[in-house]
Amino acid sequence: MSHEPTDVEPKTSRAYRLDPLHDLAGLSLTSRPQPTPGPGQILVRVRAASLNRRDLMLMDGSYPLPATPGVVPLSDGVGEVVEVGPGATRAAVGDRVTATYFQRWIAGPQRLAHVREQYGANHDGWLAEYVLLEDESVVRVPEYLTDAEAACLTCAGAVAWAAVTTPVPPTPAETVLTIGTGPVALFAVQFAKLHGARVVSITSSPDKAKRLLALGADEVIDRCQTPDWETAVRDLTDGAGAEHVIDAVGTQTLPRSVAAAAFNARITLIGAFPATEPTPDPFRGTYVSIRRIAVGSRTDFETMNAAVAAHRLRPVIDRAFPFAQAADAYRYYRDGNPFGKVVIEV
Amino acid sequence: MSHEPTDVEPKTSRAYRLDPLHDLAGLSLTSRPQPTPGPGQILVRVRAASLNRRDLMLMDGSYPLPATPGVVPLSDGVGEVVEVGPGATRAAVGDRVTATYFQRWIAGPQRLAHVREQYGANHDGWLAEYVLLEDESVVRVPEYLTDAEAACLTCAGAVAWAAVTTPVPPTPAETVLTIGTGPVALFAVQFAKLHGARVVSITSSPDKAKRLLALGADEVIDRCQTPDWETAVRDLTDGAGAEHVIDAVGTQTLPRSVAAAAFNARITLIGAFPATEPTPDPFRGTYVSIRRIAVGSRTDFETMNAAVAAHRLRPVIDRAFPFAQAADAYRYYRDGNPFGKVVIEV
Amino acid sequence: MSHEPTDVEPKTSRAYRLDPLHDLAGLSLTSRPQPTPGPGQILVRVRAASLNRRDLMLMDGSYPLPATPGVVPLSDGVGEVVEVGPGATRAAVGDRVTATYFQRWIAGPQRLAHVREQYGANHDGWLAEYVLLEDESVVRVPEYLTDAEAACLTCAGAVAWAAVTTPVPPTPAETVLTIGTGPVALFAVQFAKLHGARVVSITSSPDKAKRLLALGADEVIDRCQTPDWETAVRDLTDGAGAEHVIDAVGTQTLPRSVAAAAFNARITLIGAFPATEPTPDPFRGTYVSIRRIAVGSRTDFETMNAAVAAHRLRPVIDRAFPFAQAADAYRYYRDGNPFGKVVIEV
Amino acid sequence: MSHEPTDVEPKTSRAYRLDPLHDLAGLSLTSRPQPTPGPGQILVRVRAASLNRRDLMLMDGSYPLPATPGVVPLSDGVGEVVEVGPGATRAAVGDRVTATYFQRWIAGPQRLAHVREQYGANHDGWLAEYVLLEDESVVRVPEYLTDAEAACLTCAGAVAWAAVTTPVPPTPAETVLTIGTGPVALFAVQFAKLHGARVVSITSSPDKAKRLLALGADEVIDRCQTPDWETAVRDLTDGAGAEHVIDAVGTQTLPRSVAAAAFNARITLIGAFPATEPTPDPFRGTYVSIRRIAVGSRTDFETMNAAVAAHRLRPVIDRAFPFAQAADAYRYYRDGNPFGKVVIEV
Repeated sequence: MSHEPTDVEPKTSRAYRLDPLHDLAGLSLTSRPQPTPGPGQILVRVRAASLNRRDLMLMDGSYPLPATPGVVPLSDGVGEVVEVGPGATRAAVGDRVTATYFQRWIAGPQRLAHVREQYGANHDGWLAEYVLLEDESVVRVPEYLTDAEAACLTCAGAVAWAAVTTPVPPTPAETVLTIGTGPVALFAVQFAKLHGARVVSITSSPDKAKRLLALGADEVIDRCQTPDWETAVRDLTDGAGAEHVIDAVGTQTLPRSVAAAAFNARITLIGAFPATEPTPDPFRGTYVSIRRIAVGSRTDFETMNAAVAAHRLRPVIDRAFPFAQAADAYRYYRDGNPFGKVVIEV
Repeated sequence: MSHEPTDVEPKTSRAYRLDPLHDLAGLSLTSRPQPTPGPGQILVRVRAASLNRRDLMLMDGSYPLPATPGVVPLSDGVGEVVEVGPGATRAAVGDRVTATYFQRWIAGPQRLAHVREQYGANHDGWLAEYVLLEDESVVRVPEYLTDAEAACLTCAGAVAWAAVTTPVPPTPAETVLTIGTGPVALFAVQFAKLHGARVVSITSSPDKAKRLLALGADEVIDRCQTPDWETAVRDLTDGAGAEHVIDAVGTQTLPRSVAAAAFNARITLIGAFPATEPTPDPFRGTYVSIRRIAVGSRTDFETMNAAVAAHRLRPVIDRAFPFAQAADAYRYYRDGNPFGKVVIEV
Repeated sequence: MSHEPTDVEPKTSRAYRLDPLHDLAGLSLTSRPQPTPGPGQILVRVRAASLNRRDLMLMDGSYPLPATPGVVPLSDGVGEVVEVGPGATRAAVGDRVTATYFQRWIAGPQRLAHVREQYGANHDGWLAEYVLLEDESVVRVPEYLTDAEAACLTCAGAVAWAAVTTPVPPTPAETVLTIGTGPVALFAVQFAKLHGARVVSITSSPDKAKRLLALGADEVIDRCQTPDWETAVRDLTDGAGAEHVIDAVGTQTLPRSVAAAAFNARITLIGAFPATEPTPDPFRGTYVSIRRIAVGSRTDFETMNAAVAAHRLRPVIDRAFPFAQAADAYRYYRDGNPFGKVVIEV
Repeated sequence: MSHEPTDVEPKTSRAYRLDPLHDLAGLSLTSRPQPTPGPGQILVRVRAASLNRRDLMLMDGSYPLPATPGVVPLSDGVGEVVEVGPGATRAAVGDRVTATYFQRWIAGPQRLAHVREQYGANHDGWLAEYVLLEDESVVRVPEYLTDAEAACLTCAGAVAWAAVTTPVPPTPAETVLTIGTGPVALFAVQFAKLHGARVVSITSSPDKAKRLLALGADEVIDRCQTPDWETAVRDLTDGAGAEHVIDAVGTQTLPRSVAAAAFNARITLIGAFPATEPTPDPFRGTYVSIRRIAVGSRTDFETMNAAVAAHRLRPVIDRAFPFAQAADAYRYYRDGNPFGKVVIEV
């Protein structure tokens, strides 16, 4: 259904704006003139958006790319195309779309220039009734997903996909270890199972353990009951350790992740942790590969979507908040210990 | 349990021998002096063996490597190590083992020299109470498999593994098309599912279709009901065709396999078909990759076994015959239209 | 320097148009209204263009995608951006650019939809004073190349790059066999040497042999002196054959190419040969991989350009014709037995 | 020429033995009974051996695998086969051979079990007139190499090969940065050039710079003249940094190596540095992959040898010492700031 502008009403729409370094007080709902797609742009009426750790970091100033004051936050969302600017070709009015995390990373290896343009950081993002997307960044979403689900793929989905599948996916004989129950870890569980790998997951409560098993994890270790979980991982793998570790928690878990890893394992460290945070000495006495990655290209995103659709995977959503309660959503995401994505419905 | 030679009994054991070009009449049960492992050899008491198409071709002389007259046939089998010759290190007395198809292909790309030494062709094979294995060729088998199941991996298993996984496995968004219900095709169904691919299988009866679905195939097309099955494959894939085709039937199905394949698909043609058999023009108007492969290296075999064991996969066995009825087993394999492997228990 | 339209002069420019199925008589120089870039388009003043075999096939109707009657021919060319339409972002006025062969193949595996839009076939191409490019298809060219050289990369360069480097490049221990001295074969010689491979080339005259050696080929076999050249290739490789064969001649050489190939070699068959031309039985008695490929994606093109620039490679040009003598260029390309590209300077 | 044992002479031969933790005083030349190849073993008359950093670490006790007191040291050497034990098949009397660094790592991913058996650490090595090799570990060497050169491949050659080529080699458009002029770094320069990459090398004197250029490095930075060499590397790469860094110096250079690396670069850290040595925080603010690797498999070694032979590469030797002056060789290797391998001729 297309957007029908009328001549009589004032063309305005609502958007949250972020004033960084003021905590949640820096988030304000504003009215702005309705955006109009320029050449190569696409206007989308937002239906749902979701939060990622980077959004908290943008708020507190610890994200590597500083937030433009007053930017509309959030990188993840989904909506319906209502207007297509001149020269934009990747979507038509009525299409349901999302966008890439990095506006300009289309394919090939990631380079520095690719990471400098981001929705919700230095380009207006998804926490608004309307968002303007650069044509190149537009990505269609699988039809069977709800709006809330489709709003979860851009950041956590794409980075988990890259963590699991690049440069090569795990084999069906290998073990993938996931740390935590943040959205990246949950996607990683799903994607590793999609490739036939065995999944061992670390979590912190019996309830989360149950949900990880339901999501597909083969074994779950509760780190509260088993603080020495790296030893438990070795026990589960005949002493060998996991061939792949996906650590989306941060540098504080890295030494244990390395200790739980197989000889020559691939350890993927996810998360834009603060530059002031030291990486604990990871290599002492080990032979592993440790990498930090940042999301994925548009091509990777589309590949992920095809796999997701082929298997009718559903992103895990913890809770959805209405648009008016965006600050509550932020607060819940930060303090509420969610299992899965926190979504804001617009 | 170790082999206990005694001084008083005559050390003989039974073995079938193959006189090629005489059909089943060329197969005779003989008594021979008990083999003794020389340096670098391992003596195995055979528990089960299984048949492959190459064994029929060795019999009728159409296999590229001619059978040595009087050779003990069969490349596939499993047994227990009863004696280890000097310098042999890969197994100990009591281990349950099988062997590679090519005695000398350990790792890396296959070269001509690798394919010239084969059990059951120019080296005595598994259709005997005892087999002498070259140390390098010995491979352990997953513990949970029955002897009959473990006797099925060497040829059909390993080539299906190579077909599915090399140079890269299918992605969970791709479709693998398998042709027929020979042992290679059945392993290919299992292995493709292990990697999360969608599997479409072509078969020739409602009963086989049911069994393919039970084995994991997502869709099965009965070519008797749907002679134009390549069109049906396209319909199932939104017109795109299958990204991977594993054609273990032979050159006669190749043109249809190509017609069912996606643009730039990978078509793997399996089977040592007679050199006199022309390959129908495969490329007319298409852009695909067609390859013929021959089994896999020892390293590939071990990787397959690890994946098989991790998923507790079970080879499909149609029927097992006792050692005394080996000729019946050959006949049934050739004429009985089996679904799965034909095994001979020793 | 930008294009300065004036109000007084009639805005027209010259372009050749192709009326297919009329041989060179179907090529006519016309005047047309100066094209204007629409949204997402870029207008380029052409400086040079070059011919490929597909241009002859488009003329005689044997190309898989029929030429639109009256289309401006040629897929390969280079020029300077003079006007950028709304929403186009990939180039600025003054940039020197070329374009991809397939307008819409950006990255990832080639699919059928990617090959349906081609300059010089169903979209106006480069044999004109001006060409309109779709923004997505624009590719920058290495600065150090002359215009004539930069006009040679799109088709022959990109397909040779894909032939040599995908899915993995040859190792420095492998031999690449190239057949012929068409532009694809010459690029393949250069690209294989770039990767450290040994190159053996087949040609038809002592003069061409000398030039192949000068280009970097390690060994050249003159098929006129050595009609049984596949044996000569085996002799040069200790009997093993070449691990990679790049056959840009056509199906008639394929049987010899296969005979010169190593066990499990990768044979790449290039060229949109007529659908009526049968592929001679390629697999009889061999275990090889044969594939047909069609050019490469924009991402591949850019990767190639980076490698070309890093090594200051220069495309081989046989002869350049002025714009007015385009028909002579076609004739020379078809009948003149050129060594390297035939260029038309605009 | 075969070894001719005689009955009259006492069958003894000379060998150095290492008593660890006593510095060079722990190295003593002894006479021992001539070794005899048991089953699966091959006796080699040593012609040359060479030193690696691990040999110093084995002496001072900082190597992860402790030296067996009295072990014959050195992992690298070459010699002529003089006797073949029962069941050994990989070489014949008269062959010139070397051996792998890890006795049991044949192919596939390295696992912990593979690294526990090493010549010169817990199995008698090459600093002797004769060495007993396990059949599986035997590797032939390219014929054109001198004995001294062939004695340099096992450790430094193989690990540099793995660093450069796995999981994929650099492309001809990429830059490989090498740190230092130890044997690994020098091999890395040669191997990176073999793949067409651009090589930038860091060294510490004008003389070494000259030799690095002669070896093939495209650019050399003298860190004494340019202490801020990571900035110089960025300047040479248009600000992007090197896509591949091979750091064979140790953890102290790692922070600068990371600073000189491109976004998402692959940094390979070579060297069995002491477990007590902390790895400086490598990831602060960067997105790279850092891995530690340990030599390569036998299959990798053979692949390297094929490439080395195809290009007639020659290992760089700084100086050769006679057998009687082995301690001087150690001292020179440790204190003499050599450029290339230090060899001991036997």
